[in-house]
Order: sequence, then C-alpha cells, then structure tokens
Amino acid sequence: MIKIVLLGTGNVAEFLFGAFSESGRIQVVQVYNHSLKSLSRFADQVEITTSVENIKDADIYLMAVKDDVIPELSGSLTNKKGLVLHTSGAVSLDALNSNSRRGVFYPLQTFSKNREVIQRNIPFCLETNVPEDLELLKNLAEDIKGTPYSVSSEQRKKLHLAAVFVCNFVNHLYAIGEQICKENALPFEILQPLIQETAEKILDTSPHESQTGPAKRNDSTTIKTHLDAIVEEENKAIYKLLTQAIQSAHGKEL
Amino acid sequence: MIKIVLLGTGNVAEFLFGAFSESGRIQVVQVYNHSLKSLSRFADQVEITTSVENIKDADIYLMAVKDDVIPELSGSLTNKKGLVLHTSGAVSLDALNSNSRRGVFYPLQTFSKNREVIQRNIPFCLETNVPEDLELLKNLAEDIKGTPYSVSSEQRKKLHLAAVFVCNFVNHLYAIGEQICKENALPFEILQPLIQETAEKILDTSPHESQTGPAKRNDSTTIKTHLDAIVEEENKAIYKLLTQAIQSAHGKEL
Repeated sequence: MIKIVLLGTGNVAEFLFGAFSESGRIQVVQVYNHSLKSLSRFADQVEITTSVENIKDADIYLMAVKDDVIPELSGSLTNKKGLVLHTSGAVSLDALNSNSRRGVFYPLQTFSKNREVIQRNIPFCLETNVPEDLELLKNLAEDIKGTPYSVSSEQRKKLHLAAVFVCNFVNHLYAIGEQICKENALPFEILQPLIQETAEKILDTSPHESQTGPAKRNDSTTIKTHLDAIVEEENKAIYKLLTQAIQSAHGKEL
Repeated sequence: MIKIVLLGTGNVAEFLFGAFSESGRIQVVQVYNHSLKSLSRFADQVEITTSVENIKDADIYLMAVKDDVIPELSGSLTNKKGLVLHTSGAVSLDALNSNSRRGVFYPLQTFSKNREVIQRNIPFCLETNVPEDLELLKNLAEDIKGTPYSVSSEQRKKLHLAAVFVCNFVNHLYAIGEQICKENALPFEILQPLIQETAEKILDTSPHESQTGPAKRNDSTTIKTHLDAIVEEENKAIYKLLTQAIQSAHGKEL
C-alpha cells in the first residue's frame, strides 16, 4: 500500500482524492490545508490537519496547491523521507529544491467542481530528480487509469501554454458562439453537435491538415459579410486576427 | 416516397446522399453536377447528369453547391414544380428568387471527405417561403436522424458566423497546440483528452460560466511566462488578444 498525504483541497486535489480512493493500492492517509473550511468535506473520510507540524509520515507528499505556495510548502517538508511532488504545469521541478527526493505529477486535464471527469486516460506528465522514482510515478498514474508521460520541466511549461490555447482560449470561442446565439434568440444547443464533431475530428486527423472555412479558402465575400455582422469590436478583432493566422498558416500571400 | 434531385457532389452532397439512401422514405432519383469527373462515384448508384436540361421531375431539388452558384443554378429550375432548396449557411432564402416554392435546408455541421459523421442529431436550419413546406422539411430532417430548427435567413447568417468561431477558429487553436507539441518533441495525443473534455463540458455547463485559466484569474505571472515562451509573433498576438478578451468578458478593469 502506497501511503499519500495530500496537500490542498481544490479541484485537482478533489479529483485525485477520489481517484486514489477507488484504487486498491493507494491510501490517502491525511489531507492538509492551511484553512479548515475547505477541509471539512474530507473530514469524514480521512484524517485532516491545518498544521504542517502535524503532517504524518508517508511515502508521497502530493501538493495540489496554488503555484506560488509550492516553494514554501515544500520547504516545510524537508525533514520528511518520502517523495515530495507538485501537480503544476507551470512550476519547474527545481522549485522543490530543498527536498532530496522530488518530482512532478501534472495531470493535463481541466477539472471543475461538481463535474465528474468521467473519462479515463488522463495524461500525467511525470518528472523526478531520482530516476528510480519515475517508475513509482508511472505506477501511480496507471493505478488511477491515467496515461503516464515522461516530460521535462521545459516541455511541461510548453504543454501548459498549449493547454491555454486548446482549452481556455477554445472555451472563450465557445462563449462567443453562445453569445451570438443569445443575441439572435437561438438556443446554444444548436451549436453543440458542431463543437463535438470539431473536437472529435482531431482524434484521427491533424488539425492543420483538416482546416476548413472561409479563411482557409480565401473566401473574401463571406469574410466581409461576417465582419459586417459582428457587433462587438473585440470579436471583430478576434475574427480578423484568426482569419489572418489561418491564411498565413496555409500559405496565402498576404 | 419523396423524390429528390441532388445538385452538387461535395462533402455535404455526399453526406446527404448517404443519409437519404439509408432512409426508407426518400429516394434520390438523380445527381447533377456541371463536371462529370466528380459525378463518377455516384454513377453506379443513381442516374447522373451534367446538363440542367436533363434534370428530372422530382418533389425536391436540393442544391449542395458553392454559394455563388446558387442564384444562377436555381434560376435554371424555374420551370420545375418541386421545392427548390439550398444548403448554405450564408446565402439568404431570397437568392432563390425565381422559384415559387423555395427553401433552405442547412446542416449546421462540418463534413470532411473520408470521414463518416457517425453522430446523429445534426441540426438542420430550415426556412421556406410557403409555410406548408416547413413541415415537409422537418420530416426530411427527421428522416435522416437530424434535429430540425426553424431559422430565418438573418439568424442563419449569424449562426454561420458563430460556426466560424466554434469550428474553424477553434480548429486553428488546436493546430497551434499541435505545433507546440511538435516543436517540443511531444506527441499531439497528449493534448487530446483535454480537447475532448473541454468540448464535452459545454454540453452541461455554459462556456461563459465555466471559463478557467490564467486570463480568467488574472494570473499576470503565468501570462508573462507564456508570452515569453511563444516563438511565433502571430501566436503571441493571438495569446494577447484572447487573454484580453477573456478578461474583458469577465469584468477585469483594464
């Protein structure tokens, strides 16, 4: 049985707690957080603490906390023998610099409160300073039905950037679609099959190769009609810039 | 049995031909195209013609052709008694102005060659100048497992615009993610679960309400790190503009 102390109570911590609880090989022995309030929902399932002095001995100390808390919190675990991990996409392994055994266990997924991430195969980006620990992290990822990847701090930083494009920015484009529907008395559900198909298509076709639309085919009549139809200046700027980007990615002479 | 002449041989025509063929109530009696070459793949399944004079009598003339061809092609069908339809998101009903019975049958979906659109429930945006014909189009959509919506030309134009945001532009953001993976020796598959979950989330949560990421939480440290990490000027401009757009949509004082 691998014993884990989980530090943090946000969406990632909550997901990991649930996933570890379902696994047969991993036991979360304690959940730490600096404030008691958000700990309360774990209280009837596991030992909790708000004090770093009271953190129990374990095989792994897994920090799912805000990026800027990581260096200090890991510093308070230097007297521990276990492996100290963080779960951040943006923070390098060296931010855990006071620990002899340290690593990264970054789930490349978006987690929301009140939403079960039903899918499995979440990619886990793994990095350790002690080579033998990589195997342990691979097993940990696989035990919770994740897919392990060995990813350096530099690669992980770039993946985190890519995630902003394909998740946060994509979601904002969905929000613009939702807004256009609202303004025109149309239900947003009318766009949902298109959104799903566009996402599913990339599972078997390179998005660069499967690009379609007025920008790709240099359809200047439609582009002009669209620009005239956009009410908000900001959306107009987004339309122009992304149209231009598609055209330059697909070799139009500008 | 509803008899249809299909005009056009592109991705939409091909999808509709396949869908009608599976339906028990609809028979495609002929496929027309101006060039013979692209007609050849229909030749062993249905009568084909390259001449508008040879177009057969039918209940419905369904044009799945390029937008700019619609007015002229529909003009050549004025002597026909059936209902003349186009399938375009951007062209108004009035572009079919020489026909007494005319309508729009616009599938709001992206269709690609060599890719079966396995999903059903494709939204069909319907519009007719004769009210009784709307019922016919509803049945037509439902016969091929689509979901019918009554949508005016003005609404349809806005939907077509929204589709560019949630499909074409989203796909370009996927392509940027793919490019970042390539530049950093990472497989694109590592981003796929995130892309799927981001798309699936909108099925039960408003994208405006579920926005996450550094822009939403005004995390200026991460935003700066990301901007420094972006190689291409165009991607940097996209990052800046979409970050700003998310912040302004979520009420940050700029």
